Amino acid sequence: MEKLAMLYEGKAKQMFKTARKEELIVHFKDDATAFNGEKKGQIVDKGIINNKITNFFLKMLNQAGIPTHLIKELAARETLVKAVEIIPLEVVVRNTAAGSLAKRLGLPEGTKLERTVIEFYYKNDELGDPLINQSHIELLELATPAEIATLTKLASKINQILSTFLAARQVDLIDFKLEFGKTSAGEIILADEITPDTCRFWDIESREKLDKDRFRRDLGGVEAAYREMYKRITGQKWQ
Amino acid sequence: MEKLAMLYEGKAKQMFKTARKEELIVHFKDDATAFNGEKKGQIVDKGIINNKITNFFLKMLNQAGIPTHLIKELAARETLVKAVEIIPLEVVVRNTAAGSLAKRLGLPEGTKLERTVIEFYYKNDELGDPLINQSHIELLELATPAEIATLTKLASKINQILSTFLAARQVDLIDFKLEFGKTSAGEIILADEITPDTCRFWDIESREKLDKDRFRRDLGGVEAAYREMYKRITGQKWQ
Ligand SMILES: Nc1ncnc2c1ncn2[C@@H]1O[C@H](COP(=O)(O)OP(=O)(O)O)[C@@H](O)[C@H]1O
Ligand SMILES: Nc1ncnc2c1ncn2[C@@H]1O[C@H](COP(=O)(O)OP(=O)(O)O)[C@@H](O)[C@H]1O
Ligand SMILES: [Mg+2]
Ligand SMILES: [Mg+2]
Repeated sequence: MEKLAMLYEGKAKQMFKTARKEELIVHFKDDATAFNGEKKGQIVDKGIINNKITNFFLKMLNQAGIPTHLIKELAARETLVKAVEIIPLEVVVRNTAAGSLAKRLGLPEGTKLERTVIEFYYKNDELGDPLINQSHIELLELATPAEIATLTKLASKINQILSTFLAARQVDLIDFKLEFGKTSAGEIILADEITPDTCRFWDIESREKLDKDRFRRDLGGVEAAYREMYKRITGQKWQ
Repeated sequence: MEKLAMLYEGKAKQMFKTARKEELIVHFKDDATAFNGEKKGQIVDKGIINNKITNFFLKMLNQAGIPTHLIKELAARETLVKAVEIIPLEVVVRNTAAGSLAKRLGLPEGTKLERTVIEFYYKNDELGDPLINQSHIELLELATPAEIATLTKLASKINQILSTFLAARQVDLIDFKLEFGKTSAGEIILADEITPDTCRFWDIESREKLDKDRFRRDLGGVEAAYREMYKRITGQKWQ
């Protein structure tokens, strides 16, 4: 399968058409952005690491019965995926207070949440990806109530699977962001990526951050954190 | 019924204890604030007008079967109400895009909404009354799912009643904020106020603002707008 015209260039990935309308090639870049694109940089080899990590997770989820866009890894930075119409919602799942939730609710970062929190953000760079509720989603016709229920159930199941897997690797899954899409057949499947760019991973003992927060907050050791997560997740040495 | 110790002083009202534990006296002030208390001022006679308007609305809602805190008007600025434990949620109902919804969703102010939007804000001055979703409400144990359903149903019914009444008086009910409380018997009732401080009222033809936005946005004619709403709602001349 070969890359044809670039369909879309996002902040972290490029999407290419292929000879098949229903299949795309994702190319993972080293580009990193934060604060809605205000902060820009590069994380060396991030594209390679994220491609591996997301494929590892998506395969695991597929095997657990979660439909995903993954078809097959093609190269170090490239994967063949099912083309979907992305539902413009960022579905955020939270197990521990951090980032905007800590700020919104006045909870100290690191507070273990008594219940899992699920949030929907309107995927819209111009508006700064605002938090929205079910009534906003229905107003904008981003998803039907049945679809919202499906997204919630899938997000919660994914959280179970990933949290359990990561805990066994000494990683606490603090929170993460998912994107879903609809195939031409109308099925809702998990799309986009699950990587240190889109999750908060903390070492279960030291509480050290092993994710993009090191870049966002200028904590140093960014590349080392991505490589550490590569090792813990895949169980393989880094290069 | 006489005022005893002041229980609480808010931005627009004072609450006084009475000889009966389950009854309070509300005193309506002329003080006006906006932007979470950053902007401060006075609106002449607002306390008198708001006391009349809220009592008019609450009586109407009572008659339509909505439980409210209203017991009886005592004086120009004072009303006897049932003491409740306020549920720390601001329940906002929107028929037309304005204010923060217009900004959040990128809709031009004045866009008629295809569906009524209901939002819950966490009543917490320190946090700036953030928008929250059902999952946050459950996490913070502000209300149970059944209580959220009750609040939603009551808010929607109140919207029906008020919108219909106001439309007949040439007023478009753009949006409004409600607060509910729990009586010692555990019943959820409508509390607080329904006034030009807590609603957006636009003239149905000219789209002229007849509410606190005139104060917030320095539009002038603030007192005239409050008096105009007094007349349209009560059907009586202002003094
Ligand atoms: N399977 C898919 N089909 C179509 N689009 C996808 C798929 N998976 C992800 N996308 C979209 O590809 C775009 C590129 O990803 P990314 O660089 O992360 O963009 P962004 O800057 O929006 O975060 C995103 O808009 C994402 O929603
Ligand atoms: N029936 C009631 N019983 C107890 N408290 C009430 C009742 N009705 C309103 N309150 C509360 O009285 C306080 C005073 O009102 P207000 O001046 O509007 O305060 P705020 O500055 O919080 O808006 C508010 O916190 C409101 O929730
Ligand atoms: Mg992205
Ligand atoms: Mg108030």
